[in-house]
Amino acid sequence: MSISIGEIAERVNGTLQHANPDVRIAGVESLDHAETEHASFLANKKYSSAFSKSKAGVILISEKAFPDATRPLIRVADPYLAFTHLQRYFYPQAAASGERHPTAAIDASAELADDVDVGAMAVIGAHARIASGTRIGAACVIEEDAHIGEGCLLHARAVVGKACVLGDRVILQAGVVIGSDGFGYAWSGSEHLKIPQVGRVVLQDDVEIGANTCIDRGAIGDTLIERGVKLDNLIQIGHNVQIGAFSVMASQVGISGSTTLGQGCQLGGQVGTAGHINIGDGCKIAAKSGVPGDLEAGGTYAGIPVMPHRVWLKVSAILPRLPGLWKRLSALGFK
Amino acid sequence: MSISIGEIAERVNGTLQHANPDVRIAGVESLDHAETEHASFLANKKYSSAFSKSKAGVILISEKAFPDATRPLIRVADPYLAFTHLQRYFYPQAAASGERHPTAAIDASAELADDVDVGAMAVIGAHARIASGTRIGAACVIEEDAHIGEGCLLHARAVVGKACVLGDRVILQAGVVIGSDGFGYAWSGSEHLKIPQVGRVVLQDDVEIGANTCIDRGAIGDTLIERGVKLDNLIQIGHNVQIGAFSVMASQVGISGSTTLGQGCQLGGQVGTAGHINIGDGCKIAAKSGVPGDLEAGGTYAGIPVMPHRVWLKVSAILPRLPGLWKRLSALGFK
Amino acid sequence: MSISIGEIAERVNGTLQHANPDVRIAGVESLDHAETEHASFLANKKYSSAFSKSKAGVILISEKAFPDATRPLIRVADPYLAFTHLQRYFYPQAAASGERHPTAAIDASAELADDVDVGAMAVIGAHARIASGTRIGAACVIEEDAHIGEGCLLHARAVVGKACVLGDRVILQAGVVIGSDGFGYAWSGSEHLKIPQVGRVVLQDDVEIGANTCIDRGAIGDTLIERGVKLDNLIQIGHNVQIGAFSVMASQVGISGSTTLGQGCQLGGQVGTAGHINIGDGCKIAAKSGVPGDLEAGGTYAGIPVMPHRVWLKVSAILPRLPGLWKRLSALGFK
Repeated sequence: MSISIGEIAERVNGTLQHANPDVRIAGVESLDHAETEHASFLANKKYSSAFSKSKAGVILISEKAFPDATRPLIRVADPYLAFTHLQRYFYPQAAASGERHPTAAIDASAELADDVDVGAMAVIGAHARIASGTRIGAACVIEEDAHIGEGCLLHARAVVGKACVLGDRVILQAGVVIGSDGFGYAWSGSEHLKIPQVGRVVLQDDVEIGANTCIDRGAIGDTLIERGVKLDNLIQIGHNVQIGAFSVMASQVGISGSTTLGQGCQLGGQVGTAGHINIGDGCKIAAKSGVPGDLEAGGTYAGIPVMPHRVWLKVSAILPRLPGLWKRLSALGFK
Repeated sequence: MSISIGEIAERVNGTLQHANPDVRIAGVESLDHAETEHASFLANKKYSSAFSKSKAGVILISEKAFPDATRPLIRVADPYLAFTHLQRYFYPQAAASGERHPTAAIDASAELADDVDVGAMAVIGAHARIASGTRIGAACVIEEDAHIGEGCLLHARAVVGKACVLGDRVILQAGVVIGSDGFGYAWSGSEHLKIPQVGRVVLQDDVEIGANTCIDRGAIGDTLIERGVKLDNLIQIGHNVQIGAFSVMASQVGISGSTTLGQGCQLGGQVGTAGHINIGDGCKIAAKSGVPGDLEAGGTYAGIPVMPHRVWLKVSAILPRLPGLWKRLSALGFK
Repeated sequence: MSISIGEIAERVNGTLQHANPDVRIAGVESLDHAETEHASFLANKKYSSAFSKSKAGVILISEKAFPDATRPLIRVADPYLAFTHLQRYFYPQAAASGERHPTAAIDASAELADDVDVGAMAVIGAHARIASGTRIGAACVIEEDAHIGEGCLLHARAVVGKACVLGDRVILQAGVVIGSDGFGYAWSGSEHLKIPQVGRVVLQDDVEIGANTCIDRGAIGDTLIERGVKLDNLIQIGHNVQIGAFSVMASQVGISGSTTLGQGCQLGGQVGTAGHINIGDGCKIAAKSGVPGDLEAGGTYAGIPVMPHRVWLKVSAILPRLPGLWKRLSALGFK
């Protein structure tokens, strides 16, 4: 598989510079691993030093970076997006072919489109429905009454709990648990009485869920992950949470029960939020932050507990200087 | 399945107000999703605005809230507990029936009570013993010599390691790992030498463990989770930890090895503790706290490192004001 | 199985004190659980009070601790290491015997050494290669083209993704995911476009990975875990991370994509790091720290964001005293 530099430029809407459009490219590599048959890209200034040393046959680069460079380039508005388009050209998603591993246990009442793939040891429960083009990985467990849309990809050992719903083109990485019971008990006076968790989890179209991430089913009513949401690995989503479309979360985030996030939010790794709060559209929350209450839309936040990010930057610069301040104030009797 | 409002009141020890005891109720829904055939409940002030708008046929409510309301109500001491009792009426736990999926691999030397259910692809090892009424979900792995009590429920893909012990009515959510090796090495001078982890994990009666949570076996001796403990998802319990009865932990908590928690502790999400420490009975530890040393019983703590919660509330209010203080002090030459 | 106290002393390079070398010892127990037939050890001062009360037949102890004790002792330079050697004597690693459970699904094109064990329900994909002495646990999934070295031990339900590589003597605890997709998307203007993650994960010799830990495959190029690295449970390693030889991480750490750690680093639980940073050789980072940028080799760090540990100790002592300081300064008009 190969593509000419000219075709790449066309595909990524870029402009050639110092490059022969007929040279063929066999794949994409990072700047330091690329050979002459590879394209590469510069999207992060941190890797600028690798730019001039790279052996890449052509480099996707922004319109302004290294204006005097004389090596083969494709100038684009967004090199990372251009790289993405090119990588997707070289690695198109595999198509389902209707292959069913003989060891899979598919309940007779389950309804699978003809072209659905089912891996070894997968378990598909009663009345589950799986639409066209979906691939179910090895050792997945799809419980009774679950519905899975078209063109989904479930990696090994994903669990889709009873009656949970996946839209189209949903991706579950290995070990994902969709539809575990929410954490709900009432103290009876002598024990924690379990509250039956009878809602569902609904993942809309184009959602991707990272490895070993857990999404609890609603206590009553559903936990809802809207379209285009991307969650990284080892994330916890509590019962009855709602996550707005196109929000993204880095790994190990925890969202407590009944909290609502707006659309297009971005949460760094290890963020935690209280339950029963509202986080507005487009909020950006820095890694490790703790969110105890509602956040206004469009803000950028950081800290435990969160404050505006610009304030946190100042606070975090002051923290290591507190001992010096303390010492001087103590000398004046202020401790 | 339905129940009259009068029967509900009796079941939850409540008092009818503006309600016809003969009206029948088909289920429980949240205030905003309930229709006239549903009961609902108000247990959190945050949802007060939904109270008057709700279409619910009857609402479980505290004795004092909305004293002038004229809609059908059942007044109770604890609406959340009343809702729990009602929800358990509508959703009784399914009974085991002795169903064994033909794909399950049950070792000939394992001893299962006649009515134990075993799901598809489950693996039950040599000399494992499983008592009456227990249901083993799809793709669970019960290793050799494990003992599982009566009336347990293991969701899909739970692992119960070699020789580990579950009491009665234990619930494991999907992906739980009971009995992974503890993290123990000694530096030999040239490598980390693994210490064989040969203890067990013992879960007493009525323990519930959340999805993908991991509990390490003791290095020597056991890791012990006492009766009625409830752990949320993605929690880490190190080797030789002891957790006292009825303690609860929200998701993503990490308890380091050989730490002891008392009875009735409550830990918020993402709390972490050092190893080899003692946390007294009834401690409450706020989300995201870091616990470096022993904690006295009965305290409420927060912060990294933890301090009394009332102090932390003041500290956290001061943090975002530090830049202003710093600026004024700097003007006086105090930086 | 038993060993004489004299043989123990020889094995751990220790000196007998008040002990009869011919007395036989049947195993190792903690100080408070040991009976006369057991050896025990004192390696942590916290357990000193258990020393005199212990019934142990002999105790491994440092050369200086309890100089006046008259009970049977073996004096050693490092009691923890001595205990480790003794424990490994009593619990040698089980050898593989070539046992293949009849339910395992091994692709005809996979190449397994004759003595490789394969547990029930395990899935081994096309062209996978597994070397001599390796044991594959129940319900593991080894995807196509994966290579696994000699003498490895994969506990139940571990996943080794497509084309990933394990060196020799690698241990994966239950639920580990090696080779999940990295978290990589480019915003197209209307959606998060998934970047195909086509690199591998490479684990070198003597690596151990804890339960339910996830290691993402490289986007392009590999994620590399060098020899002797030990990772605890529920850790997240992002794509294209490199971890230097003999580094260790406690549970729930998160390392963001493209970050490089040097050799011999030690990270406490719940540490998080930014992506694309360099952490030098031998860094020690305290539990719960947040690392936003590069760290110099050999340092000891703590805090969010990290600062030198000695500074953090002062800062953390001042934090709970801030309210008092604030009050006094406020009285002078400094708020």
